[in-house]
Amino acid sequence: MRSLSSLLGFIPANLHLYKLAFLHKSYTHGVQMSQNNERLEYLGDAILGTIVAEYLFKKYPNQNEGFLTKMRSKIVKRKSLNEIADQMGLDVFLIQNGVDNVSHSMLGNALEALVGAVYLDVGYQRTRRFVIYKIIKGYLNIKELETFDDNYKSQLLEWCQKHNRQVSYKVLSKFKFDNRDRFKVSVLIDNVDQASAEDFSKKSAEQLASKKALKKLGAMMVEEVAE
Amino acid sequence: MRSLSSLLGFIPANLHLYKLAFLHKSYTHGVQMSQNNERLEYLGDAILGTIVAEYLFKKYPNQNEGFLTKMRSKIVKRKSLNEIADQMGLDVFLIQNGVDNVSHSMLGNALEALVGAVYLDVGYQRTRRFVIYKIIKGYLNIKELETFDDNYKSQLLEWCQKHNRQVSYKVLSKFKFDNRDRFKVSVLIDNVDQASAEDFSKKSAEQLASKKALKKLGAMMVEEVAE
Repeated sequence: MRSLSSLLGFIPANLHLYKLAFLHKSYTHGVQMSQNNERLEYLGDAILGTIVAEYLFKKYPNQNEGFLTKMRSKIVKRKSLNEIADQMGLDVFLIQNGVDNVSHSMLGNALEALVGAVYLDVGYQRTRRFVIYKIIKGYLNIKELETFDDNYKSQLLEWCQKHNRQVSYKVLSKFKFDNRDRFKVSVLIDNVDQASAEDFSKKSAEQLASKKALKKLGAMMVEEVAE
Repeated sequence: MRSLSSLLGFIPANLHLYKLAFLHKSYTHGVQMSQNNERLEYLGDAILGTIVAEYLFKKYPNQNEGFLTKMRSKIVKRKSLNEIADQMGLDVFLIQNGVDNVSHSMLGNALEALVGAVYLDVGYQRTRRFVIYKIIKGYLNIKELETFDDNYKSQLLEWCQKHNRQVSYKVLSKFKFDNRDRFKVSVLIDNVDQASAEDFSKKSAEQLASKKALKKLGAMMVEEVAE
């Protein structure tokens, strides 16, 4: 109870909601379906997404919706939530509720469920404060996320410019699959083939090939935080 | 202004927000990027999703998150929002702002932007009321959505049972594509091939084939509202 209050930054009123937030379905055999955290997770996922959306909307008054959408997905993506939940120490609460093998995804799900519980307990405004101060500002480096680049083509281009080398792409084949065009492309540095990949768009295949090339070159700039 | 108040159910305070909500990007050449409704649409999309999520969470205390997620996507999907916006008469507001060719997607986007504007104008609780009473209860038949079935296999089975016929599925081929298993299946009625389809899972390929068969039989039970 004391640790929950310090986690939340306020004294919770409806303790049963928080208890439910940490009840994972695999540890609630034989009890009612509603007695696990999945419904709260569904609710919390939406609320967290909205609070983050609004936070970014106000923080970046001059950025377009493409930038905002990208930033939001960097914040609320699975891997990011799993890590935040881990740092928050949510595993302790799961263990207290009988989970003896806490997985990463259980942590992220519990964080979403916790947001759902907070919302039902104290309403939107106080949940907003909790999310902004205890989650976003507590565990995320927004400045770093701004510049985190998952555009592998531009990363590769930058690397080549720095090392005075030439990058180019070549379509190896184009064919029909499932009535859609499919492309196989390779990426070349100084005319030497580095990697190839295929996908349903040329641009996407080039991204995938660039990612492989960056890995091969050991030039991936930011550790990938995705999926 | 009078028509806006009657649309909203309250008298708006910050008119410029509503004006912005109906400014489509293709009609705002030469002005600042921030002077169109895309940022509001980004915000409104999140808020609408959360309000619908919460509404369903409370309306169905005994349903699991799978049901809730499905119901939510039936409500907030593109085509549904386009239709609601059309019925709300949002085209009038777009036309007033210079749009001379209102498309379906402009309407749905304007509805999302309107929710964003309402939120910035009057806050979460009153936006919640607006969405529940003016959108959900105003234009949706929730009971009908509950039973709307996009499970084509079960629809086809039902049709066959009614018409005393036998349905079966056959895997025509299974192959590797992009390192993933891909299945081509056909659906047979009384052992006669009706339609075939392929996808990365057998179940999904069967769904697609069933959908084709239902169309062919003219047996699609509910007009598809999807995408």
